[in-house]
Amino acid sequence: MSNEKTQTGPKFAPVILAGGSGTRFWPRSRRALAKQVLALEGERTMIQQTLARLAPLAKPADVWVITNGWLQEIIAEQLPEISQEHVLAEPCARNTAPACALAAFLLELTEPETVLGVFPSDHVVSNAKRFAQVLSAGIKLAAAGENIVVLGVPPTRPETGYGYIEQGVTVDGVEGCCGAVPIDVHRVRRFREKPDPATAERFLAAGNFHWNGGIFLWSAKTLAAAVREHVPDMVPMLEAIAAAHGTPEFEEVFEREYPKCENISVDYAILERRSAKGEKRSNIYCLPADFGWNDLGSWASLHEHLGTSEKDNVIDGATTGIFAIQSSGNYVYAPGKTVALLGVDGLVVVETADALLITTRARSQDVSKLVRAIHEGGREDLI
Amino acid sequence: MSNEKTQTGPKFAPVILAGGSGTRFWPRSRRALAKQVLALEGERTMIQQTLARLAPLAKPADVWVITNGWLQEIIAEQLPEISQEHVLAEPCARNTAPACALAAFLLELTEPETVLGVFPSDHVVSNAKRFAQVLSAGIKLAAAGENIVVLGVPPTRPETGYGYIEQGVTVDGVEGCCGAVPIDVHRVRRFREKPDPATAERFLAAGNFHWNGGIFLWSAKTLAAAVREHVPDMVPMLEAIAAAHGTPEFEEVFEREYPKCENISVDYAILERRSAKGEKRSNIYCLPADFGWNDLGSWASLHEHLGTSEKDNVIDGATTGIFAIQSSGNYVYAPGKTVALLGVDGLVVVETADALLITTRARSQDVSKLVRAIHEGGREDLI
Repeated sequence: MSNEKTQTGPKFAPVILAGGSGTRFWPRSRRALAKQVLALEGERTMIQQTLARLAPLAKPADVWVITNGWLQEIIAEQLPEISQEHVLAEPCARNTAPACALAAFLLELTEPETVLGVFPSDHVVSNAKRFAQVLSAGIKLAAAGENIVVLGVPPTRPETGYGYIEQGVTVDGVEGCCGAVPIDVHRVRRFREKPDPATAERFLAAGNFHWNGGIFLWSAKTLAAAVREHVPDMVPMLEAIAAAHGTPEFEEVFEREYPKCENISVDYAILERRSAKGEKRSNIYCLPADFGWNDLGSWASLHEHLGTSEKDNVIDGATTGIFAIQSSGNYVYAPGKTVALLGVDGLVVVETADALLITTRARSQDVSKLVRAIHEGGREDLI
Repeated sequence: MSNEKTQTGPKFAPVILAGGSGTRFWPRSRRALAKQVLALEGERTMIQQTLARLAPLAKPADVWVITNGWLQEIIAEQLPEISQEHVLAEPCARNTAPACALAAFLLELTEPETVLGVFPSDHVVSNAKRFAQVLSAGIKLAAAGENIVVLGVPPTRPETGYGYIEQGVTVDGVEGCCGAVPIDVHRVRRFREKPDPATAERFLAAGNFHWNGGIFLWSAKTLAAAVREHVPDMVPMLEAIAAAHGTPEFEEVFEREYPKCENISVDYAILERRSAKGEKRSNIYCLPADFGWNDLGSWASLHEHLGTSEKDNVIDGATTGIFAIQSSGNYVYAPGKTVALLGVDGLVVVETADALLITTRARSQDVSKLVRAIHEGGREDLI
């Protein structure tokens, strides 16, 4: 982290969620080499980029990472600035609610006023400066009272693969939102699940719907209180785990208690239930994630991110050359090779030492189906 | 050669033409690793298979190979039974007429009655027993008088990529043609160049048109006489080269004289001109190449040859596994890898250590265009 945090303000603890299973970028991504620990674009891995863009906002000592046993070691290697005690490996996948709640209970014990920010570890942000601006304002807003802050990505297409945030009234006079580049703040009216295509078109046309990019801000005590209110069943387990942190029993308690938690997302478990209180009483605010966000959800997204147009052939991975005749819109990853394309369009071809994937950009969302077939075929060596 | 020749009959000297430049099976085939020295199907290379199927008909000592400087060494390695003196490397490509004529002049010096058979080195024959039957009859026919024997492949589709042989009247009572499985013998009426699609359809419907598969039989003296009659300009050069064979000056003479020869195929230079004498006077006979011939002219032909149906995914080259979802009719060569296909049809993907080709079966005829682009791009390392 080159940009050490210097400003004062609410204490901020980023919680990076890094438990993804790495099927969408197969065969490059594997269970033990998921997307977040790959350098899919640029020199640094996705999680290294995630940490780097948090540098202006938080000290490394305040960052937490929640991952799984497959990835704990490589993440510790990739993020040497982070305390080993802050890299937690879930004994089993339980979606985002238990992970966020655990972080809240851990911080509540010592610093309940700390603002806790939840960040996916495998998304791309192209404007890091704007990211820091928006987050900085969001942290101040989250520190005030019992506010919850969510970041909404301005939609560019009627995407059916994301949840949506329906914005309510504009809020003026939020501290930190009136700089040179102002930041719009809205109350949140409702969270909406992944829509069907017609609904997605309607959301896009309406103008007040943003994509839910999975970035949330709230103080530890606010989140802890929300967990106690909306998902009380998981409280005893998570309080026990938090209490054991830093003791020799931690791993044992984690392994015993965590699997008992409900497998549920923080959106369903807390945000939707809280927003049901109504736009005013829920105190959920939406700030715009207008900093070049891309979740790189598939090989097709990576093609879009790396190319300048849909017609581009994107030849990735230190290619030694490219020859293309009557071919366009292909994504090829073939490190160290010269790629020759003849009369092909919209394909995705990815080569690793042990596997060769051949599909299309249109079907690359379904790569996880292939991974399932490979798993069912008993080829754990490829998973 | 496991089947040593035992029968007596006309002396027979096969001349295997192996000067192909190896662009159609790029990136597996290269200038120095052309199709004929690759094991595209089965364990043995194409030229090894060619020699093996000649074993019942000729002693290895009587076999000649005409190739180029790129391939001379590897062919000598692959065919250790053949005398090094019989593996000739053309100093430059001059199509088939000079190569065949040179063989005729070489044999004419010592054994003018020898029947000389011209064989491409890179075709597939699935019924080797039938091959030997037909060739055996053809050799006898070629040994009698000034006959020329050509083999015609029964056409299965209106192919526009081959020349055609138009058959004339049936000839009865040819020695060796009345065995358990009889062999039809026809006089040749005309040779026809590669037709347009409508003409190809007409040829197929007519029933008396066969594909010209490039296999010819004639005695050395008959071919030598035909060369002197139809392409007299190349005679002095080729006679000089033949006279120098076995002397220390051979290579020098070969290099000096051969490039002066006309660059022309034996079909155009001799067969077409001879057949212009008329069906009876030309003494050209056609025997059926009904032994499962396939010229493997492209990746698409190889797919057809290796698969049992057009819908087959053919995963070639010691794959470690195949997973296919909603994919059919693909040809993939990825040695040592597991191949995963998702929603793709009719593709050709071929991987080598330094290159990755991605095209379609329909376009695989044009791979040579890619090779030309690579050559023009200065990437001789890939040629």
